[in-house]
Amino acid sequence: MSILIEDVLLDGDRKNIRVEGNRITSLDSDEGADTVIHGNGKAAIPGFVNTHTHAAMSLFRGYADDMPLQDWLSNKIWPLERHLKPEHIYWGTKLACLEMIKSGTTCFNDMYFFMEETAKAAEEMGIRAVLSEGFTDLLDPDAGKERFQSSISLVQSIRSMRNDMIVPALGPHAMYTVSPESLQMISEYAEKEDLLVHFHLSETEDEVNACIEEHGKRPVEFLEEIGFLNPRLVAAHSIWLNKEEIGLLSKHDVKVSHNPVSNMKLAVGKAIPYREMKEAGLLVSLGTDGCASNNTLDMFETVKFAALYQKAFTGDPTILPAQEAVALATENGARALGIDAGRISPGKLADIVLVDLRAPQLHPGHNLVSDLAYAANGSCVDTVICDGKILMQNRKIEGEDEILERANEAALDLVGNE
Amino acid sequence: MSILIEDVLLDGDRKNIRVEGNRITSLDSDEGADTVIHGNGKAAIPGFVNTHTHAAMSLFRGYADDMPLQDWLSNKIWPLERHLKPEHIYWGTKLACLEMIKSGTTCFNDMYFFMEETAKAAEEMGIRAVLSEGFTDLLDPDAGKERFQSSISLVQSIRSMRNDMIVPALGPHAMYTVSPESLQMISEYAEKEDLLVHFHLSETEDEVNACIEEHGKRPVEFLEEIGFLNPRLVAAHSIWLNKEEIGLLSKHDVKVSHNPVSNMKLAVGKAIPYREMKEAGLLVSLGTDGCASNNTLDMFETVKFAALYQKAFTGDPTILPAQEAVALATENGARALGIDAGRISPGKLADIVLVDLRAPQLHPGHNLVSDLAYAANGSCVDTVICDGKILMQNRKIEGEDEILERANEAALDLVGNE
Repeated sequence: MSILIEDVLLDGDRKNIRVEGNRITSLDSDEGADTVIHGNGKAAIPGFVNTHTHAAMSLFRGYADDMPLQDWLSNKIWPLERHLKPEHIYWGTKLACLEMIKSGTTCFNDMYFFMEETAKAAEEMGIRAVLSEGFTDLLDPDAGKERFQSSISLVQSIRSMRNDMIVPALGPHAMYTVSPESLQMISEYAEKEDLLVHFHLSETEDEVNACIEEHGKRPVEFLEEIGFLNPRLVAAHSIWLNKEEIGLLSKHDVKVSHNPVSNMKLAVGKAIPYREMKEAGLLVSLGTDGCASNNTLDMFETVKFAALYQKAFTGDPTILPAQEAVALATENGARALGIDAGRISPGKLADIVLVDLRAPQLHPGHNLVSDLAYAANGSCVDTVICDGKILMQNRKIEGEDEILERANEAALDLVGNE
Repeated sequence: MSILIEDVLLDGDRKNIRVEGNRITSLDSDEGADTVIHGNGKAAIPGFVNTHTHAAMSLFRGYADDMPLQDWLSNKIWPLERHLKPEHIYWGTKLACLEMIKSGTTCFNDMYFFMEETAKAAEEMGIRAVLSEGFTDLLDPDAGKERFQSSISLVQSIRSMRNDMIVPALGPHAMYTVSPESLQMISEYAEKEDLLVHFHLSETEDEVNACIEEHGKRPVEFLEEIGFLNPRLVAAHSIWLNKEEIGLLSKHDVKVSHNPVSNMKLAVGKAIPYREMKEAGLLVSLGTDGCASNNTLDMFETVKFAALYQKAFTGDPTILPAQEAVALATENGARALGIDAGRISPGKLADIVLVDLRAPQLHPGHNLVSDLAYAANGSCVDTVICDGKILMQNRKIEGEDEILERANEAALDLVGNE
């Protein structure tokens, strides 16, 4: 199967992008193809890579907002999560994938429950996913050993799908929910099996203080000591870090997933130390977090929030400029997850988004990258290609109505059981 | 002319909204009407009121970003503004109105140049506007007297249009560009002619320091002393205020227009003291500012930024909850500008927006107000009614392609003359 995207705007020039199988093969093809897409009036950008989310939490959207973090978790989110059933996860993920595709995301990194359902939903929707079970042992290593079996099962189950687009990973939740012994066990297994590790790191100051009290060290220092830091670690949030910790993350090539909308909405108290991370050479990418704390999966919005949050918090309007902010959401995301995508160039995986330039907010069009970072939103996406397959054209996705209906039913069922 | 919006979601119930002429007359009408709109799958909300913008700056979108404020103004914005011609303003405003209508705004408060063109463009688009000439005298009162004639001419010119939807106002730019004598002159004229006064107040700390140095007082204290504070004053930004100043603004019932996206993008250093303003009983509304510093006119986005900016800056996730944030953009905006709209109830002006609830980000729909504040964006708007006339249905606006094309040409012409 081949696709030719004719006469499309790419990095300021008009190109003919050719896709053969699941790879981009040329930017100036003049051969015919099985499918020809007219790119006139459109710009091609790499699909967004969302490096931290909990897709099925789309069912929680609007269920509880404007609450203190601990109250929100303890009295709203966790009680509802105890009623989650596989079919909730399946339809919640379908809804999330629908929203992601419609807003230009082609790959997401997800840690949650009943992840076989997430894998099935993502596979059906044709989107790339890195999936881990949210692992906790409530600081009991014995319980951890037992519970880890289900994380291993998930890895095996996903591998048995034989779908390169669905990648298994491990998901130790956070330092305050997982014992050091289990973190070590997970880290060793990840190394042996060459798996990414998806983790929540230093989202709140309380977490850091609790770690210092318990271990006499700051979180990253402690994690280094137990051998948990390495290039396979994707550390979501990573807000409350000092300079030494940033240095350690850099030394071990840990990947940071920044979640600006969630951080602002939950009022975690400050923005990631982006300048220091950049100076230390850390790879920073972007995530939306789950819909309970965002409340969208729109990476255009996340790019704008990331750039403006840094400017507002540092007082420096030049920090995280448009081009760099877009790169965090594309190229850096792909690098963080080890996906050979994130750029539109020959040899790369064909994860391509076409933006419809007719939207009024993309006019007059002095600077496309600025418009993408600061003026576009998910609704500007016209066409999405992932792994060489067209998932959406003219904003139409097959089965959309059914997904919305069934997701609504799943949400009602979930809340009804509360 | 009558319109019936059948079976539409309004504040949690299904209603039949009736419009006769330019007013809402009933919420449970069962009579026929000249035009019947099926509201099934849609929610009705009041049109947004954008209380601070420079519409024609849509032509500057993406022209200069990520720069220090003074450098940006002095080396990019002001030089380009010197080349502005009436036709730029006309097409820039047309583009802005197109974007505003498509994202659910039915009224805007604009201070800029060649405002007869803005008036003409707004009238043609059918949107409500409060329009003032951006007045500066560069601190020379004699120049001020002379220049003020053109502000008076604008008022007369707009009044001669005999269109209640286009409201004249006065637009003294800011304390650092207008002499105290001119501020007094403008304030007196505004009282005599019953006009709103649109002003930039304490956007940056530098402004405040300059005022203290010059006058030995903080800006609001000085403005009170010269008799500039009153209920007709709409003070954009209003960020760098102390408690006494907030008290003075409240005492004189000054209206505050908060511009969160612009403030974050330009890194003005802090967020408005919203809690203190609310406690003092100040009326706070929302503006986008111009496209050079935002870069959209999407009030859904501004609502989300306003709520999250407050949470992030105060560390309190409960501040400015969804319902309140939406009210700032609707009811409070209308009150600030003295427009009898901002709520959907019998007797109010028929400025009504229908939101299409089929968008994935509005599912599962636990809480419509939360979804409007945190998940929707301008693309969710399906239908816009302003002053009892349908401006958009099914997202279609007549003449859209021509506006985009001519606005692009105007922007090219403007930049070409730089």
